[in-house]
Amino acid sequence: MARTLIAGGTVVSATGAAPMDVLVDGETVAALHVPGGADDVAVDRRVDAAGKYVVPGGVDVHTHMEMPFGGTQSADTFETGTRAAAWGGTTTVVDFVVQRAGEVVQNQLAAWHAKAAGRCAVDYGFHMILGDVTPEALKAMDALVRDEGVTSFKLFTAYPGVFYSDDGQILRAMQTARASGATIMMHAENGIAIDVLAAQAVERGETDPVQHGLTRPPVLEGEATHRVIALAEVAQDVPLYIVHLSASQALEQVARARAAGRNVFAETCPQYLYLTLEDQLGAPDFEGAKWVASPPLRSKHEHHGRDLWTGLRTNDLSVVSTDHCPFCLKDQKELGRSDFRAIPNGMATVEHRMDLLHEGVVRGELSLERWVETCSTTPARMFGMYPKKGVIAPGSDADVVVYDPAGGGVISAQTHHMALDHSSWEGFRVTGGVDTVLSRGEVVISGGQYLGRAGHGQFVPRGLSSYLR
Amino acid sequence: MARTLIAGGTVVSATGAAPMDVLVDGETVAALHVPGGADDVAVDRRVDAAGKYVVPGGVDVHTHMEMPFGGTQSADTFETGTRAAAWGGTTTVVDFVVQRAGEVVQNQLAAWHAKAAGRCAVDYGFHMILGDVTPEALKAMDALVRDEGVTSFKLFTAYPGVFYSDDGQILRAMQTARASGATIMMHAENGIAIDVLAAQAVERGETDPVQHGLTRPPVLEGEATHRVIALAEVAQDVPLYIVHLSASQALEQVARARAAGRNVFAETCPQYLYLTLEDQLGAPDFEGAKWVASPPLRSKHEHHGRDLWTGLRTNDLSVVSTDHCPFCLKDQKELGRSDFRAIPNGMATVEHRMDLLHEGVVRGELSLERWVETCSTTPARMFGMYPKKGVIAPGSDADVVVYDPAGGGVISAQTHHMALDHSSWEGFRVTGGVDTVLSRGEVVISGGQYLGRAGHGQFVPRGLSSYLR
Amino acid sequence: MARTLIAGGTVVSATGAAPMDVLVDGETVAALHVPGGADDVAVDRRVDAAGKYVVPGGVDVHTHMEMPFGGTQSADTFETGTRAAAWGGTTTVVDFVVQRAGEVVQNQLAAWHAKAAGRCAVDYGFHMILGDVTPEALKAMDALVRDEGVTSFKLFTAYPGVFYSDDGQILRAMQTARASGATIMMHAENGIAIDVLAAQAVERGETDPVQHGLTRPPVLEGEATHRVIALAEVAQDVPLYIVHLSASQALEQVARARAAGRNVFAETCPQYLYLTLEDQLGAPDFEGAKWVASPPLRSKHEHHGRDLWTGLRTNDLSVVSTDHCPFCLKDQKELGRSDFRAIPNGMATVEHRMDLLHEGVVRGELSLERWVETCSTTPARMFGMYPKKGVIAPGSDADVVVYDPAGGGVISAQTHHMALDHSSWEGFRVTGGVDTVLSRGEVVISGGQYLGRAGHGQFVPRGLSSYLR
Amino acid sequence: MARTLIAGGTVVSATGAAPMDVLVDGETVAALHVPGGADDVAVDRRVDAAGKYVVPGGVDVHTHMEMPFGGTQSADTFETGTRAAAWGGTTTVVDFVVQRAGEVVQNQLAAWHAKAAGRCAVDYGFHMILGDVTPEALKAMDALVRDEGVTSFKLFTAYPGVFYSDDGQILRAMQTARASGATIMMHAENGIAIDVLAAQAVERGETDPVQHGLTRPPVLEGEATHRVIALAEVAQDVPLYIVHLSASQALEQVARARAAGRNVFAETCPQYLYLTLEDQLGAPDFEGAKWVASPPLRSKHEHHGRDLWTGLRTNDLSVVSTDHCPFCLKDQKELGRSDFRAIPNGMATVEHRMDLLHEGVVRGELSLERWVETCSTTPARMFGMYPKKGVIAPGSDADVVVYDPAGGGVISAQTHHMALDHSSWEGFRVTGGVDTVLSRGEVVISGGQYLGRAGHGQFVPRGLSSYLR
Repeated sequence: MARTLIAGGTVVSATGAAPMDVLVDGETVAALHVPGGADDVAVDRRVDAAGKYVVPGGVDVHTHMEMPFGGTQSADTFETGTRAAAWGGTTTVVDFVVQRAGEVVQNQLAAWHAKAAGRCAVDYGFHMILGDVTPEALKAMDALVRDEGVTSFKLFTAYPGVFYSDDGQILRAMQTARASGATIMMHAENGIAIDVLAAQAVERGETDPVQHGLTRPPVLEGEATHRVIALAEVAQDVPLYIVHLSASQALEQVARARAAGRNVFAETCPQYLYLTLEDQLGAPDFEGAKWVASPPLRSKHEHHGRDLWTGLRTNDLSVVSTDHCPFCLKDQKELGRSDFRAIPNGMATVEHRMDLLHEGVVRGELSLERWVETCSTTPARMFGMYPKKGVIAPGSDADVVVYDPAGGGVISAQTHHMALDHSSWEGFRVTGGVDTVLSRGEVVISGGQYLGRAGHGQFVPRGLSSYLR
Repeated sequence: MARTLIAGGTVVSATGAAPMDVLVDGETVAALHVPGGADDVAVDRRVDAAGKYVVPGGVDVHTHMEMPFGGTQSADTFETGTRAAAWGGTTTVVDFVVQRAGEVVQNQLAAWHAKAAGRCAVDYGFHMILGDVTPEALKAMDALVRDEGVTSFKLFTAYPGVFYSDDGQILRAMQTARASGATIMMHAENGIAIDVLAAQAVERGETDPVQHGLTRPPVLEGEATHRVIALAEVAQDVPLYIVHLSASQALEQVARARAAGRNVFAETCPQYLYLTLEDQLGAPDFEGAKWVASPPLRSKHEHHGRDLWTGLRTNDLSVVSTDHCPFCLKDQKELGRSDFRAIPNGMATVEHRMDLLHEGVVRGELSLERWVETCSTTPARMFGMYPKKGVIAPGSDADVVVYDPAGGGVISAQTHHMALDHSSWEGFRVTGGVDTVLSRGEVVISGGQYLGRAGHGQFVPRGLSSYLR
Repeated sequence: MARTLIAGGTVVSATGAAPMDVLVDGETVAALHVPGGADDVAVDRRVDAAGKYVVPGGVDVHTHMEMPFGGTQSADTFETGTRAAAWGGTTTVVDFVVQRAGEVVQNQLAAWHAKAAGRCAVDYGFHMILGDVTPEALKAMDALVRDEGVTSFKLFTAYPGVFYSDDGQILRAMQTARASGATIMMHAENGIAIDVLAAQAVERGETDPVQHGLTRPPVLEGEATHRVIALAEVAQDVPLYIVHLSASQALEQVARARAAGRNVFAETCPQYLYLTLEDQLGAPDFEGAKWVASPPLRSKHEHHGRDLWTGLRTNDLSVVSTDHCPFCLKDQKELGRSDFRAIPNGMATVEHRMDLLHEGVVRGELSLERWVETCSTTPARMFGMYPKKGVIAPGSDADVVVYDPAGGGVISAQTHHMALDHSSWEGFRVTGGVDTVLSRGEVVISGGQYLGRAGHGQFVPRGLSSYLR
Repeated sequence: MARTLIAGGTVVSATGAAPMDVLVDGETVAALHVPGGADDVAVDRRVDAAGKYVVPGGVDVHTHMEMPFGGTQSADTFETGTRAAAWGGTTTVVDFVVQRAGEVVQNQLAAWHAKAAGRCAVDYGFHMILGDVTPEALKAMDALVRDEGVTSFKLFTAYPGVFYSDDGQILRAMQTARASGATIMMHAENGIAIDVLAAQAVERGETDPVQHGLTRPPVLEGEATHRVIALAEVAQDVPLYIVHLSASQALEQVARARAAGRNVFAETCPQYLYLTLEDQLGAPDFEGAKWVASPPLRSKHEHHGRDLWTGLRTNDLSVVSTDHCPFCLKDQKELGRSDFRAIPNGMATVEHRMDLLHEGVVRGELSLERWVETCSTTPARMFGMYPKKGVIAPGSDADVVVYDPAGGGVISAQTHHMALDHSSWEGFRVTGGVDTVLSRGEVVISGGQYLGRAGHGQFVPRGLSSYLR
């Protein structure tokens, strides 16, 4: 296979930055050299990284491609979604298989494999959503860990009647995961109480998108977060990972548990760092529907965003993912025009995560190392893909991004590559941008061109987390 | 009516102690005088309180007399239970009316009135247990507050299928209470998770009484306590009162909420201060069944008792009640000999609360003033009975206890006055004891004799709490 | 002696309010009666309290009358200051004797006795400031507790070179107090660091009064508060009382210690509840000098006032005192026109404390009971004067205030009774006001007239605190 | 220069482990290769690392070689001490230059350079102890940062009259460091209070070594830690590094500050993880003197060690150093036989740190990655030596340790290489041990032989910390 030398750049890892040349041989990194140290190695291709960062490809552990939702499905297919990921410097996504009442876990996994196989631009893995924790599902958990490279299971305290598990189901799933070493992922909002508030809003005739946020108060995310942390303690400290943490109250609970040395982890998403209930979700004329997602964007009067940046610095938030789940305005978001509860939930960020977090570096919120750590290294470690993913090192997959710290522009639906008729980030200016992207040794983005192909991306069977305390 | 002068004693209030004479005229206190100051008033009876404390009659806001439970009922009737209360210096009890699925709140209240009327030795009030929060029940809440002198409503996160309310029901009840000014009382344990643990224990063949404690870990009391505090925040800071708090984890949540200035309150019970999972609940040969109650006695290795004493000092625990709910060993506790889940829950303490807490004074855990405050003054304020109850002051009901700080003995089923074939406190030595008890001006205990009568005790219609922040 | 009946009012105590008539005989309360219950008692005077509150006279445990300071002295003498106190419903003040380097504790106490004796309008006690903790001073502490009715000792982490004690001196004084049962009072600001900041401000040419606040940041009050709490722990939990707590950071430390059950207490003052660095201390043209005091008024952008109100509700702040220490603008505050460090420190509030805190009741910050508790009952208990002071009860001193909840007006130097050429509260409107004041049975304020006399007020020898946990 | 290939081992970094071969060229790492990837490169020497870890050389940022102390000096010279470091896999030490009253900072630095130059076995840097914060010393701080590669300054709240700085001096030094970007290191114990306790112990005739611990209670470490964190806040979040943190109370303060996102960091030392007041310091017959150091070993009844391990996992403790400061029993420790205050303070651990922390990995306290991170990577980043030190990467110094996870033994003064007549760790069994050590490309330890030489080690001028938030 082909050899590529990425030379002249500054390799940034989770612990620091230094000038190095990266030699890629076939699908993996063969060697790291001092600058010029591999100049006499015969290569097929040289990538000039002078003046640029060379970072491990982004790992986005929270995406929903072509996810079924209320008769429709999320707008990005595995093909369009992973291609957009590649454009944005993300070379691995972990998507969610969905099992619901009456469905067999293994069948669902097979169905998702069928959807993704042969279509992805970059590598992908699967988490399993358990929407119906039956004795069979519990047995399936063990099978998936043992045989299928699926080692993380997501449950919900939200969405009663859809994905909701009661505390007994959660506890049983946690106990099962504890025994196999798997990780429990939780969507932590008190859906039972939220449904009461939402019904009351609708009864009062308050049906606009902003009500989606007002009826999901942050204290109910804090509540559910505390609750699942308590259940995880009962389950003898099963590894617990809170997805898309958005509220200061939830962060406080995670921080307390972590300060006590517990195996509790959390991710946040760019939208909770930058966007707010008032400025986006509260936009008039149903425009707010673009930003309907759960948890909702939070009030700018309550400092959630500031606290989340702090959490990223303190590592109480260890990962940045996107919860990428795009729905078009037309035909999709429109479903909820007369009742916010019917608006499909989700935003589209898989293409912009690396840029949006690099912007945190530009603004002084985050160090360069933490950018790499939260967007690539830690997610790979957390979900059993390291050192295959998440690091530029000999033997690792050659998922490498040459990143231009001055290569940015303005985000727009006119120019993005996701299959969405609007952008969650329209008009947002980012300073940096992707220059070149390699996925398992192949150049997939270069010179503003997509050079990859559907089907290059492979399934990544994952091991247990190597990020436990 | 008759006049009584209680002379020569030291009147103890929630703020201090001083020598005073108390003049009772009919059912109420007519005056407080400097010692000797009423010697020239014509009275029908003089009580010599020299060397003794004169304290407001105890107010026990958590009793369950003749409560139906799984085909049986708690062993004390309103007659025997309130008589035992009088023996122990408690002159007011607030008992729980029970409404369950299919039952009409007002009918249940009427049924309880029928059980109690004409039978009580001391005054009594009612809280309402809502076991089925329906729209009708929510309307009934307002009616009870407005018309019936029942201003507090108890819900459960425990006992699924029996008393359990889901978080949406709890939230709706809280919102309703918030509007009327009523207080929500919560039994806070995560019953859903507990049922999983209990079923697993039984599946493993572990059916002894101690399993009752082991399957209700303290973290699940902390969890539910945090949860209902969060729901109370959503309900705009409805007054919230945690009943029978037993675990450090729950106390921590209450303390946090209170430090933030929230209207969150809690009671504990003597059993959680003195008894433990190992020493009582773990007693061999099914003897532990005597102490099966929920929440369970806690492990002595975890400092819960020490923390609860601290909480009483800090006022994070504002009230001491008994959760008096006696079941005999014979025919009752025996029901669970082969499965701890079938053991009727409850202990018997209504007769001993004042002595057991005075013992805290003797041991240096509590000041004399705090004894009076936690056992009489605050419960009366908290539940809308002050200044009728909870204080010795002109115009207040003449519920007065002359307490002998050296008048104690050893507690035993041989000598107690509760209708129970054993004692939860067998062999426990207390230093102080009741000398004389007046209930609404009548001497009901004197010279080691019960002088009262069934029917003297009257229903106390209660107002809203005067203890809010 | 004369008998007075205060009839028709609502007696408010720390636990509640009820209609009662108060019979005063000579200097003490002889009896409390149900309304009308003493109508047939022969009395010399009847006070009509209909529609008014009847509350125990205010106890202000932090005043500095005619205190020497940098060549001048505070503007109120014991005569003018205690008269102003009477006007405001405060019937007991505890003032600070000052001992400094080279001075003998007992001599200083004698000097203060000489200043106060025969001049006070209301009763007074003394705390002792130890500005020079020598072995002799430590011995004197024991003597004062044993023989002189002075049971509380104030030390400073502020004012290096003047009142400052180092941590070793503080520890030794705490150990000494621990042995005798006395209370240590602390002015907790890090004076050493503050002096650096103040010197740097002056070096930069920033000499305005507002710099007094900017160079005493709240974190340095929090620091010193934490420090003295730690030292008190080393001294085996000596009772510790933080004076004039002004900052959220300090409150947090007190709250933590109290949550752990420690004997740590704090007072705040009305100025920290209502006034701010920006609105008062930052007033232009040297007007800010009126509000130069230590700790300084805090920034309104940091929520200190809100937190202090919460602290009063939670009892983490147990007492409201004034730190009354008036200095006139003319000739006194003027001393610091070119350097804020030379401005005499202090404000004047002794006359307004009861009104200002009643205003907290009007605004919904505090319950009526807490008003009485924080302004009268608890200070009396805390400093060993209860039940002589702080309560209306048979045997207690007849220090009684008939308070008109609608009797207020606008505070102004034109109408106040303190010996000050301006008012710290000019233009502040209060809703309630004093109607009638009795001091040890004598009517000293009535019908808008001062009827008292210099010398009526007596020294109150104090016992140990009865407010410990 | 020579080329070395370290082949067949598992390279462990702060983020994970993977098989790689390390090519060293001269003093630096030239390349990392997949296993076998450099087999065709001509090298001078091959190190077989099969079955072993290959880790970046240890970085011990807290040593005191030949430190003057009370007329004597610490027993290890730069020669013996750095040689012992090499034996233990530590390839960089940062030692403390001492400036005291009357001494000129730059002169002291020169003196220390003179002591170390030409004598060290491994590389070394310097921190500067400021024992006398004068205006000249403050100026010198800037000069050292700018010109001398000394970018960290240690101050003491302990040792009054020796190293102690008052809070004003600390604040000024912090402000100066804030401006230049330097780091302030603090020995945080309240020395003023400790001196009182120690004097009181001696007055009582309690002079044994254990008194050293009993008179330095952990709360006084917590106090000083809180204090300097507060001062660092006043100094606008100057980077603050707490040295040799030993007490849970101090850890709590660090954790709180870090949770708030502050630039507060801390190290602990192996002795605080494994040894206790009772088992070592309390040894009879003056043997406890071996373990007299400050802060003292802590009581095993208080969970400090458990909390410190947790802190290492949570990263509230970021670094493990040794505070290596050996004093012989004979002639040195003996000085305090009649008064513990005269015992020279210090233990000897520089040789054992890597083994002792690897033992934490063996015992399940720490992950393999955290071992490398806390012992090498983070100290290098924290003190401005990364990526020269602390990482195995192209361009980095070839400080490489081949570590045998089963190569351990029993620590003993009979076999150790430090110039000490006893061992602080006598009889302690470690599982792992050093196999081969390279320092800047030279093999200094191999086959149980020391192959290095005095003078190989060079001074490392350091930059600013790259570990800030």
